[in-house]
Amino acid sequence: MSTEDRTERAPRVLKAPKQDRSRATRKRLLEAAVACLAEHGWAGSTVSVVAEHAGVSRGAAQHHFPTREDLFTAAVEYVAEQRSTALRDLFPDGPADRRAVVRALVDLYTGPLFRAALHLWVAASNEDQLRPQVTELEARVGRETHHMAVELLGADESRPGVRETVQGLLDMARGLGLANLLTDDGTRRERVVAQWGEILEGVLTD
Amino acid sequence: MSTEDRTERAPRVLKAPKQDRSRATRKRLLEAAVACLAEHGWAGSTVSVVAEHAGVSRGAAQHHFPTREDLFTAAVEYVAEQRSTALRDLFPDGPADRRAVVRALVDLYTGPLFRAALHLWVAASNEDQLRPQVTELEARVGRETHHMAVELLGADESRPGVRETVQGLLDMARGLGLANLLTDDGTRRERVVAQWGEILEGVLTD
Repeated sequence: MSTEDRTERAPRVLKAPKQDRSRATRKRLLEAAVACLAEHGWAGSTVSVVAEHAGVSRGAAQHHFPTREDLFTAAVEYVAEQRSTALRDLFPDGPADRRAVVRALVDLYTGPLFRAALHLWVAASNEDQLRPQVTELEARVGRETHHMAVELLGADESRPGVRETVQGLLDMARGLGLANLLTDDGTRRERVVAQWGEILEGVLTD
Repeated sequence: MSTEDRTERAPRVLKAPKQDRSRATRKRLLEAAVACLAEHGWAGSTVSVVAEHAGVSRGAAQHHFPTREDLFTAAVEYVAEQRSTALRDLFPDGPADRRAVVRALVDLYTGPLFRAALHLWVAASNEDQLRPQVTELEARVGRETHHMAVELLGADESRPGVRETVQGLLDMARGLGLANLLTDDGTRRERVVAQWGEILEGVLTD
């Protein structure tokens, strides 16, 4: 509120840069939060650690995100949105070659975002404070990913079994992400993705 | 060593009960370790917590398992072996109805064992002390599960793509386990498993 008042009194021309700075700070915090979560896990990721990593004061971090839970759920959501946008940009003309789409969907689950999200899920499963926000976030991101998968695969969900086929594919992608957690599973994953791309092509075009 | 010596000096008839007690203590510790891991996560699962949960002194726990890492990797392995045995017992005549086998395989990943293993994997991804043991354990359990899946599905791995088909199915099972972490995903999972059971039946009998 007091920040607003001060802004009001400043000349209008100065408003935009200040908002830009605030947005940039927020973005730095969100990206640092995901990086910390992926690297140090939930126990090692405090607001102070993230603020330091982002080069932002602890006070500024708390201005943007009142609680640790707020910061980390916002961070995973922010990066998930960015990944969705990147995926859509890969296929600007909508439905595309299914084998390529399967590969791109699986890629969503093998990077630092998945690693960060996994730490958040596992922490939420034991922490009552975190669980409601993360459960809601997971449902939202899951729906969005499903929607995108259906669209890019050109899958007709009015046909029996198609919805479950796409869901199972996304479950497989999540499982492949998990298999990549401790070791680089890229070579095996490549073969599994090629085979299931073929199978999916057959099931969806029948 | 000194325990051995004392045993040697005792009358032979007393030896068996003592070994039985030791085996029972070990078993209690292993089961308590998995329960603690599933319920409290890695950070909340110390050797002391497990020993108390098992009704065993901390000294006795350390006699069986010198380090915390030893205790928890042994625990996840022990329970994984028990689950494998239970799965084989479900299909005593070997290859069985594939839809039923798919369902039973997915069930391996939705109980407290999977939850415990997940905590262990995620902790190992950030802890250098834990990583080598858990990586080796995961590879061993993964090979055993794959072997069992191939056998029970009556899958002919000499045919191109069959190995990768079975691997993808197990990845999907893992992903379904993950989806069950925060909420009861049973209704959705049931439909996905039914559909993918059909798909697998088609692919493996072609």
